[in-house]
Order: sequence, then C-alpha cells, then structure tokens
Amino acid sequence: MNTNKISIKSPATIANLVCGFDILGLALEEPYDIMTLENTDHPGLEIIHLDDHGLPTEPAKNVSGAALLAMMEELNEVPKWKLTIEKRIKPGSGLGSSAASAAGAVFAANKLLGSPFSNDDLIRFAMFGEKVASGVKHADNITPCLLGGVTLIRSIHPLDIISLSAPELFITVVHPQIEVRTADARQILKKEVPLKQAIKQWGNIAGLVAGLMQGDHALIGRSLEDVIIEPVRSILIPGFEETKRRSLEAGALGGGISGSGPSIFMLSKEEKTAAAVEQEMKQVYAAIGIDFKTYLTKLNMKGITTF
Amino acid sequence: MNTNKISIKSPATIANLVCGFDILGLALEEPYDIMTLENTDHPGLEIIHLDDHGLPTEPAKNVSGAALLAMMEELNEVPKWKLTIEKRIKPGSGLGSSAASAAGAVFAANKLLGSPFSNDDLIRFAMFGEKVASGVKHADNITPCLLGGVTLIRSIHPLDIISLSAPELFITVVHPQIEVRTADARQILKKEVPLKQAIKQWGNIAGLVAGLMQGDHALIGRSLEDVIIEPVRSILIPGFEETKRRSLEAGALGGGISGSGPSIFMLSKEEKTAAAVEQEMKQVYAAIGIDFKTYLTKLNMKGITTF
Repeated sequence: MNTNKISIKSPATIANLVCGFDILGLALEEPYDIMTLENTDHPGLEIIHLDDHGLPTEPAKNVSGAALLAMMEELNEVPKWKLTIEKRIKPGSGLGSSAASAAGAVFAANKLLGSPFSNDDLIRFAMFGEKVASGVKHADNITPCLLGGVTLIRSIHPLDIISLSAPELFITVVHPQIEVRTADARQILKKEVPLKQAIKQWGNIAGLVAGLMQGDHALIGRSLEDVIIEPVRSILIPGFEETKRRSLEAGALGGGISGSGPSIFMLSKEEKTAAAVEQEMKQVYAAIGIDFKTYLTKLNMKGITTF
Repeated sequence: MNTNKISIKSPATIANLVCGFDILGLALEEPYDIMTLENTDHPGLEIIHLDDHGLPTEPAKNVSGAALLAMMEELNEVPKWKLTIEKRIKPGSGLGSSAASAAGAVFAANKLLGSPFSNDDLIRFAMFGEKVASGVKHADNITPCLLGGVTLIRSIHPLDIISLSAPELFITVVHPQIEVRTADARQILKKEVPLKQAIKQWGNIAGLVAGLMQGDHALIGRSLEDVIIEPVRSILIPGFEETKRRSLEAGALGGGISGSGPSIFMLSKEEKTAAAVEQEMKQVYAAIGIDFKTYLTKLNMKGITTF
C-alpha cells in the first residue's frame, strides 16, 4: 500500500431500524461513496467533489472536512491533505450520506497517520461532521458505517458502542426523490411519549436485539414495529403506507423509514423476496409519479474498506 | 410419579430488571413456594395454606385458585382438586409471590391432566391469578417463574415470550419489611415520559439484552440503569439509595428495585461479591432500624420443578 494515498469505500447505512430510534443502525453493501485521501507538501485541506451534489468544499463547512479538522485539532497538527470524494449516496436520502463522508474521511486519515486512533476516537471525530450536516452529534449512522453489521449505541456520553451479531439479511431500499430535512424530521416529533407506548417500544427493541442475536428471522419481523416515531414521520413520505403494506404482503420481514427518511427499507430473509419487494416499491412510486431509485442489497458486515 | 398427586417448587422472580419495566424478568434459586396438588373424588377446589400469611382460600379470590379456574373453564370441566400451599415467598415482597402461586398451580394442574396445555396457555391462565393479586394481568413474573432464566415479554396481546440466554449470575436480595402495594407503585408513575429519557431507557434495554446474550458482565452492569421508573418508585423505599451505592462500591454489577418493591436486588459476577453485598445490605437496614430479610442466591435456569 502506498502510504501517501489511500482509497476507500464508505457504505450507506440505515439508522433507527424502526423501533431503535437514535440507538440502532446497520450498514449496507450498496450504495457507497468512494473517497481518496492523499498527503500533499503544503499545509491545508483541499476537498474536491467529483459529484454534482453542490456540497461546500470549504473544510469547516464540509462534513468530511469538519471531521478531519476535529481529528487534527486533537493531534495539534496542521493537515496537509487532498481529499477527493465521489459521493454516490445522495445527500438527504436518509441513507447516512453525511455519516459516510465523515466516517470515511477519518478512517482514511487514521490509516495515513499510522492508526493512532481507536474506533471510539474515530466515531467521536466523525460526529463533528454529523453536526455540520444536521446540527446534531449523532452516531447511529457513523458507527455501522465504520464497523459494519448491526450496531447499538447504548450511550453517546460516554460513548458505548456494541456490535450485535446478526444473520444474513437482504435489504431492499426505495429512495423517493423528495426532500425531508433531518432537522425538520426531528422537529415534528413529540417531546413526550405515553409510558404505555414507551413500554411497547422497548419490548420491540429488546425483541429486535434478541432476534438478531439468535438469528430468529420471525422474531426480527415481529419486532420491527414503531409506535412512537413512524406514525408521525411517515406523514412526510408520500406512498409510505402502501409501500410498507405491499412489501409485507410480498414476504418482507418488516421495515420502515430509513433514518429520518425519505428512503424506506425492508428486510427479507431470502434474496428473491427482497427482489419481489423491489418490484412492489417500483410500482408504488411509478403510480404516484414521484422520481425514485431502488437498491437491492445486503447487510454489510465489513463497514468501510480500503481498495 | 403418582399421577394423582404432584408436588412442585415454584421460585421467586424479579420483574423489570431495572431498565426493562413490564418486559423483563428472571427467576431465583431461592426463595420458593412448595405446592402440592392432588386429585379428589368430589367436585370442587379445596385450597389449604400451610403458612400464616392470611391469604384467602376461596378459589375465586385466591391467586392460585383464580388461575386454576381459568384453566378449567377452558377445558369446560369442574375441578376435583385439593391444593396445599406452603408459601415461603412473602406476599408484597416484590419477589413475585403471587406469580409463584399462579404459575405453580397451573404448572402442577397441567401435569396432573397429562400436559394438554402449552407454556403460552399456562402463562395466559396464570395471568388471571395476577389480576386477582394486583388488578393487572402482567406476565413479567409468571414467565420467568415458569420457564426459568431471563425472559422477555415482547408483547402480551398477542403473547410473545422469548427466553434470553444469560451467563451465571449471583443475586443478592434484601427485603425491607415495609409494605409497598403494586397498585400504589403503579399509581405514582407518570403517564408520559420525555422522549429523551425514553431513548436513554431503550439504549439500556438493548444493552442489557445484548450483555446477557453475549455473557458480557460489564455491559450488563452499565445497562442496569433506569431513568424513568426508579427515580419515582425508589422514594417509597427507605434506604434504597444507600443500599445501591454501597452494593456498587462492594463490586455488584448493578441492580435496583425488584418488581414494584420494596425488595432490592443486586447482580454480581462472583459469589464472594454477592456475599459482600449482602453484608452491606444488612448493615444499611440494621442502622435504619427496619426489619429485613436477605437472600444470597443465583439465577435459576429451570423455573418450576417437580420433586
């Protein structure tokens, strides 16, 4: 490996996993961003976007840049880097686009520096990128992006990250091309929840964790129920109810809003079920007349990888 | 085995497990009730208590009786039984005394009848007993009592019970002999909880389930935190804060209120730690001047057993 330059794939992620608002997330095989970080001989952090998403390239305002600056501040060093980003995960899709940028950048930088930092450190730095993107330091996309698989963030202060074992899962995603801003999606949530609903929710979370760790697909499916967030947020996503209903009829285990939306994801035990779900999704959004993109992919057990 | 008569041990249980209000429970090796059910040649259900707790013996008002009547109603049969109960789990202790009576009775009856019923059926019948005791049909003591180990009740309607694997755990319990009625302990809970606290709680529940299933004692300890119920209910239990603080200092993984109290339990990885915790508990309540009883026991993996 040329230690002056590193290229990585940084995967899309699904946060919340229906009942696990703010604590659970998983990584997808696709889509992913491609990023290259290389050493230069002059102080500064140059950011080049090979995509046309119109993202800021000024380091402090760029998600990757903010995460890298946080890392270099801890080292008390001035960066001498050029970062090239080919962003394939569309910003605002609800698929962890900003997390892929933030986690990918610090992962690459840590490799170039000779790996002085732990995963917990990298998550901490990457959260500065998330703050630039949404105003909130959250880790439920960053963590599965970095580590792969399904991850639990038990606590952010102090950071307590647990990787959960999980069976093979096929994942179908539809991204209706409408805008749902993370900040708006947070705004509409009620600040208080009825204790009865909270109890139902934590039964489902416990069931989902147990189902994943036991490899019990039926239990995973039964536990993918959200009585608190989904009823409020799904209103922002045209076609949500129909997509969910038809996906379940096609055999999906369950699913819901990816992160704060607008993407919708469905988990399936078999690839052919996931493919049937994709057909339903296409039909729903073609009929509504909203532009959309679908992905038929799998649970990604590796997280960010070099290539 | 004489099929006209059966004797069983029905164990004490701890519901809630700090962060898992209404969904988690575990069974203890001690204390336990001893019950004998025998066929008679005349219609009716005779209940005899060998203890001095002053519990009603009229079947419809007795916890065991109500559970047995629910079972016989489903069979459309008139019971011809004599039930003898030696109740060693003190009613009102928060250690699942009523659940032991209800679950023990239906377990024994099912054996005498040739096991026509599933565990789910037995849990359903036993909940009629819980309703007599506290006015609420809950299953978080009944289920671990019957099945042993740590159990998750993901949902009551429909009933969805999951047994969670768990490492060996030593459990210290102190029962301060004050009265906390389950109905009162429910009454003082707030009907609404802040979303932020709910999120913290479900992070802990997910962490506890993962910790148990991974056999990660440190994670179990970190997850034994309740930001919703304990701050309210612990006010009803003199000495709670001091018991908890000193138990943690003595090396306990964590713990809290057993069920709706007043008993307090602490989990430990090692037996000697659990013994040190017991000493702290004794000192706290001796100093306060409240009568108390302590138990040094283990996680019971078998649930109800015949002997």
